[in-house]
Amino acid sequence: MTLARGLVRESDMKLDAEIALAHRLADAAGEAIRPWFRAVGFERKGDKTPVTAADRAAEEAMRAVLAAEMPTDGVIGEEFGISTGTSGREWVLDPIDGTTGFVAGRPLFGTLIALVVDGFPVLGVIDQPILKERWVGVIGRPTLLNGRPVRTRACSALAEASIATTGPHYFSDHDGEHFMALAAQTDHKRMVMGGDCYNYAMLASGHLDIVCESNLKLYDWAALVPVVEGAGGTMADWNGEPLRQGSSGHVIALGDPARLDDVVEALACGH
Amino acid sequence: MTLARGLVRESDMKLDAEIALAHRLADAAGEAIRPWFRAVGFERKGDKTPVTAADRAAEEAMRAVLAAEMPTDGVIGEEFGISTGTSGREWVLDPIDGTTGFVAGRPLFGTLIALVVDGFPVLGVIDQPILKERWVGVIGRPTLLNGRPVRTRACSALAEASIATTGPHYFSDHDGEHFMALAAQTDHKRMVMGGDCYNYAMLASGHLDIVCESNLKLYDWAALVPVVEGAGGTMADWNGEPLRQGSSGHVIALGDPARLDDVVEALACGH
Repeated sequence: MTLARGLVRESDMKLDAEIALAHRLADAAGEAIRPWFRAVGFERKGDKTPVTAADRAAEEAMRAVLAAEMPTDGVIGEEFGISTGTSGREWVLDPIDGTTGFVAGRPLFGTLIALVVDGFPVLGVIDQPILKERWVGVIGRPTLLNGRPVRTRACSALAEASIATTGPHYFSDHDGEHFMALAAQTDHKRMVMGGDCYNYAMLASGHLDIVCESNLKLYDWAALVPVVEGAGGTMADWNGEPLRQGSSGHVIALGDPARLDDVVEALACGH
Repeated sequence: MTLARGLVRESDMKLDAEIALAHRLADAAGEAIRPWFRAVGFERKGDKTPVTAADRAAEEAMRAVLAAEMPTDGVIGEEFGISTGTSGREWVLDPIDGTTGFVAGRPLFGTLIALVVDGFPVLGVIDQPILKERWVGVIGRPTLLNGRPVRTRACSALAEASIATTGPHYFSDHDGEHFMALAAQTDHKRMVMGGDCYNYAMLASGHLDIVCESNLKLYDWAALVPVVEGAGGTMADWNGEPLRQGSSGHVIALGDPARLDDVVEALACGH
């Protein structure tokens, strides 16, 4: 009993250190990003400088913190690729998830930070640096928004579910048809488009029931899993299988895990 | 000369009174809306109470101000319909434009307030009460965001344009095909979905080039016209004709008026 308690304590302390580090990473990214948001002068030139600059500056800032504090961990970043580590752990970074929204002036993009161990994310952060909203999810702990617990909401039937996706133009091949087959079974008058990672944050906070997307990379979804699951929801691929490093990038998030079979079945109907 | 100057002064003063009134309307609406935003407890019951309550409370608050201060003006509201006036002027109100976004927890919905004279909007407000951003457009004056002028950006060719629309599911009949014909000619990698009135505000502020929608009611678009045009852009129907009371609800907004013919031509290509 004493030994077990001691082990739990040690494990909690270790996790606490990583949570504190994740906050510092998000702080560093936000500092790098804010000056570029709605930087009209640059956009007028017609190039894509502001978002590229913000993306790169934010990832560099996070990599600098990791190199100093966790030099043996690996890093997988959207901008600068893979830095192999020796610890068996990887920090997965997307400095700006939702670059088109960022460029369009919407404060709904997010910095995504995940710690992946053995292929599964154990810690995730969704940070919105303009609105200063930060969701932190850790396996086995309640998800916090700015330090306060959030919960997904119950959804008793697919017909009552609100659904979100970033846009139909992000589906390739027949994925759009499968998505529409699912959407048709939901309360589609409440369907919302756009939003990127912010949709998953809103699902974690109990304002959406389903988010469904495809073509996501590891750095797009890894941080979302601990946030959604720590709030009481679940994430899976379109077959209902747990997401892990190497998954196909077909992602569903549900506020109410009891709807998983319904969603998988509905997705399978598209052709 | 002295007479003309006097007339201009008188007209300016009159407009100033209406601008001040429009601010008080937006303030009243924001007060009524804020308590209902992300009201999770209510959403859990599965009804649509929070947004309906917010919508109605905000329109009632604005109508009370108008009844007290401009009793001879007409009012056209999204929630409570038409109150005929005797002045020949109408206040057109949409307390929450973007209700699905509101329900999904996104702070991108807006309160829309327009003053319509002889069928044309002469004053428009887009107010985002959570982010506390307020765009005010008045015919012949520069559009202001929280008191500071904003400008649309130049767009030298359709292929460089970023385009936004709230969602493909809002197009009926063949409108979606016409929209896609236009979108295909733009820089569609930057296309964004969702956003409702906030897209027009972002266009006015120089972050988007085109917004294209159909099925809009007078209260959906009237406030947008002075905001967009006072910032240097233009709005029209899908044939390029000026929007006026009774228009079909096919709406385009352009940051750069020089692209109007290109957009109308591209829309006509869909079939």
